[in-house]
Amino acid sequence: MALAAEATNPGDGKARRVDFQTDPSRYRHWKLKTEGEVATLVMDVDEKGGLFDGYELKLNSYDLGVDIELADAVQRLRFEHPQVAVVLVRSGKDRVFCAGANIRMLASSSHAHKVNFCKFTNETRNSIEDASEVADQKYICVITGPAAGGGYELALAADHIMLVDDGSSSVALPEVPLLAVLPGTGGLTRVTDKRKVRRDRADFFCSIEEGVKGKRAVEWRLVDEILPRSRVEETIAERIREFASRAKRSAGLKGITLTPLKREFTPDGVRYSSVAVELDRTERTATITIHGPDGGAPADASALVAAGADYWPLRVSRELDDAILHLRLNEPETAAIVFKSVGDPRLVIAHDDFLQKNAAFWLAREILHNWKRVLKRVDLTAKTIVTLIEPGSCFAGTLSEIVFAADRSYMLIGQFSGDNRPPATLTLHGVNFGPYPMSNGITRLESRFLGEPRSLEEAKKAAGEPLDAERADEIGLVTFALDDIDWEDEIRVFLEERTSFSPDALTGMEANLRFGGPETMESKIFARLTAWQNWIFQRPNAVGPEGALGRYGTGQKPNFDMKRT
Amino acid sequence: MALAAEATNPGDGKARRVDFQTDPSRYRHWKLKTEGEVATLVMDVDEKGGLFDGYELKLNSYDLGVDIELADAVQRLRFEHPQVAVVLVRSGKDRVFCAGANIRMLASSSHAHKVNFCKFTNETRNSIEDASEVADQKYICVITGPAAGGGYELALAADHIMLVDDGSSSVALPEVPLLAVLPGTGGLTRVTDKRKVRRDRADFFCSIEEGVKGKRAVEWRLVDEILPRSRVEETIAERIREFASRAKRSAGLKGITLTPLKREFTPDGVRYSSVAVELDRTERTATITIHGPDGGAPADASALVAAGADYWPLRVSRELDDAILHLRLNEPETAAIVFKSVGDPRLVIAHDDFLQKNAAFWLAREILHNWKRVLKRVDLTAKTIVTLIEPGSCFAGTLSEIVFAADRSYMLIGQFSGDNRPPATLTLHGVNFGPYPMSNGITRLESRFLGEPRSLEEAKKAAGEPLDAERADEIGLVTFALDDIDWEDEIRVFLEERTSFSPDALTGMEANLRFGGPETMESKIFARLTAWQNWIFQRPNAVGPEGALGRYGTGQKPNFDMKRT
Repeated sequence: MALAAEATNPGDGKARRVDFQTDPSRYRHWKLKTEGEVATLVMDVDEKGGLFDGYELKLNSYDLGVDIELADAVQRLRFEHPQVAVVLVRSGKDRVFCAGANIRMLASSSHAHKVNFCKFTNETRNSIEDASEVADQKYICVITGPAAGGGYELALAADHIMLVDDGSSSVALPEVPLLAVLPGTGGLTRVTDKRKVRRDRADFFCSIEEGVKGKRAVEWRLVDEILPRSRVEETIAERIREFASRAKRSAGLKGITLTPLKREFTPDGVRYSSVAVELDRTERTATITIHGPDGGAPADASALVAAGADYWPLRVSRELDDAILHLRLNEPETAAIVFKSVGDPRLVIAHDDFLQKNAAFWLAREILHNWKRVLKRVDLTAKTIVTLIEPGSCFAGTLSEIVFAADRSYMLIGQFSGDNRPPATLTLHGVNFGPYPMSNGITRLESRFLGEPRSLEEAKKAAGEPLDAERADEIGLVTFALDDIDWEDEIRVFLEERTSFSPDALTGMEANLRFGGPETMESKIFARLTAWQNWIFQRPNAVGPEGALGRYGTGQKPNFDMKRT
Repeated sequence: MALAAEATNPGDGKARRVDFQTDPSRYRHWKLKTEGEVATLVMDVDEKGGLFDGYELKLNSYDLGVDIELADAVQRLRFEHPQVAVVLVRSGKDRVFCAGANIRMLASSSHAHKVNFCKFTNETRNSIEDASEVADQKYICVITGPAAGGGYELALAADHIMLVDDGSSSVALPEVPLLAVLPGTGGLTRVTDKRKVRRDRADFFCSIEEGVKGKRAVEWRLVDEILPRSRVEETIAERIREFASRAKRSAGLKGITLTPLKREFTPDGVRYSSVAVELDRTERTATITIHGPDGGAPADASALVAAGADYWPLRVSRELDDAILHLRLNEPETAAIVFKSVGDPRLVIAHDDFLQKNAAFWLAREILHNWKRVLKRVDLTAKTIVTLIEPGSCFAGTLSEIVFAADRSYMLIGQFSGDNRPPATLTLHGVNFGPYPMSNGITRLESRFLGEPRSLEEAKKAAGEPLDAERADEIGLVTFALDDIDWEDEIRVFLEERTSFSPDALTGMEANLRFGGPETMESKIFARLTAWQNWIFQRPNAVGPEGALGRYGTGQKPNFDMKRT
């Protein structure tokens, strides 16, 4: 089964395109209701609603499509329902909370799809924690019935886990004994680092199929409380009141609508309102061009609300997010993303100024934090990131983060011959020194200048100044400053060479070099846990013809190579 | 080539046993000379001296055998030559410093051997940094000729890297472009986190085959200085004087001899003077029994020196180290290590008291730090670690670290029926609260009690007290306290189940659960970097029939699956 599976490869571009855009009216698996400051997210997976053929989403198990809806809901709660202070997550099925990632889907997926699926679901779990931390939207998860594997990992992202004490509700991470893979959506890391479960108890918990229920689940800190059967709804209501009363909310917050992205797919790319993706399938590169704003910042907060989803910084961040996800899932052969920009850097800075000045206003804050998450998505993309800073570009403030997210950046000295656009500049802004931490907890410039604190200081002093190529190079903000004569050849040769390397070695190299310095729970999830899971997802004991994933549910036991490695 | 290779599997037990014991008189690849406070370690690899057949160690390339000698030299410098303050590392070849790990060896090795090889070489590089930090033995590395891949990674472990400025000496990490694997011996991590090379420069550096030389190498912090051709020896001598003058050394330090381990291999185990390894090949377990000391602590420091390598704590740590390495490399099918101990806990504590009291004395300090390194080796072993605390055992102080290193520990309540040995106890000591950090930088008890700071305090208060099973369980020091009735069945069932799980899933699970909390450069090397390398070592682009490792040197280009994952 697993062997045949490689033929129907959801991530291969052979199957239909994975689309990350949805909205509540189109949800098949989730129901989102809001009432005042309380939202309820009910997981009620449509068995027949799998993203691909060949599996049924039984027992509230999920595939990427289910998670795309969840990610959308979490995002909409922040922008469309800022008044919401508590999000209650429940199951819509009587007897099961969630059985985790669908096993047949995993068994029939290509390695690349499994890896991309886990990466996205991890990003979604992180977005739940981000909503709690930044937007003070607290997630309460009520577990009725078994929460197994990814089901429990979903609960682990919540602020408060309630387990019904009915003898059948339980939490479990049965991946190792049952499937020969890891709980790959942050479970192992959150058990030890978020809930700080004692390591030997965690070992026990992760080695049993049946999970833990009742008192032991609380004692071991796997859940926060157990709900006596007789007082389930009553206790939930109490807890909601309690969390809601603690939330800091301005009265009368009204959201904006996240309108559908304007987007057109062509055979060789995607065109959004201000972002364009052009694929060169022979060279295996994708060029993403970001178009700067047409006008300046809004007059005030209410003008911002009036602009809503059409406001340039928000619109571009959403378009960029969609473009990156599209390239990850639907264009696996793309080896490198080349970023360019076109526009007036002063206008970019004007919007950054406005957002920073109004950061206490919920929508400005949300837009900044959306950029933070999108930029993290760029950092975590398994493609080489290159930024070209050319005449006419607008890499300033927020957009210059894309320069610092790049594995390499090239900046043109002076002008192109026969081109009268003014020489390229790079402009730093306060947003480059705080609001956009990477998943390792520090900014891109801090990561860049780990060994050169003086360069960081110099960069801070240069904020606001349009830096030309030589100055940017001097401070250390770009990899190479080249003149017109070398530009084209140098970049062509680099990209040709780069895209000829082993994609796996590049992924490993970039995953290591991009994240110098400290680690956080989030970076541990994407490094330690994910890398081990990727390894295991490649091992015959999991995915081979006699491996556990393919044999699951067949009645046949897997056959393991017993060498410990 | 790579396919056929799996048949001759150096780590499989089919080939001859890998022996980690050696001494300078038997070195084939290194020359160790000491003169006063300066030691010189010359790498002069014997091409014909490979540990296995099928490859020649050309251009000072290395295999596990070469690294075993290096690890031995680093260890002997600390115990046998404590007066040494500076260790000069050089090449014995005219035109090359070191070409890194031997590629044909890698191409012809099993996956398990590659992983174990990298783990050991990483531990050796860490031991060099430990010598610098703890024993104030500073390593100066002089690079003449190319230092490529593992060659440069060896230099990266040193305190000071000198590169001869002769137009041909260079440093390089060419693994990605040349071999489709990562520099797997800490290179990527040390470049970003130790030498803090800017990430885009690191990206450039790791993507080129030819490496970097001369001024750029210094500017980019890849080396510390370049040596003008005309003043090579003179500058080295200056630098040695400078480092030596800074070292804190008591006058007239005299080392002890690390005598050969007393050891006897049997078909089903190994017997050392105080450590016994018994294999159950059907159950795939190895039981390691540690025998406690026969007598109390020495009267004073000179009695300690007189006892030398025969001193129980040192002797046991060396024997345990050898046993662990033996199991890793020569017994790949062993899934679990079961630790037991026999002896008088009061005597173990007496030695811990003595060592802590005399920690300012070099040999006591070295013995404590050797235990630290051996215990880290246990933590990093890809086998389930179980500790059984039974009547007659002596898990106290240092030995109780093995309880906290375990994935699970079981402690018997009371006595076995028909057995009159006194009930088991567990005794904590100051050594459990500081001197033995794990690779994440915190102690095993701190890792254990991340979520229960009060338990840590309680444990501290209980130090010195022989804790019975119920009390140990109450504080949270053991996983399960069982009585005689359940003991045998419970442990048998656990081990049977555990050893039936996929070895890969267990390795990934344990690598995640064992290291909660903070990360250090060392833990990043063993988690992020190693896990990615293990993944890549499994990918067809590296090790498949058309992969880069097998095709290296054949004139044929590798054929890559270009999907980025």
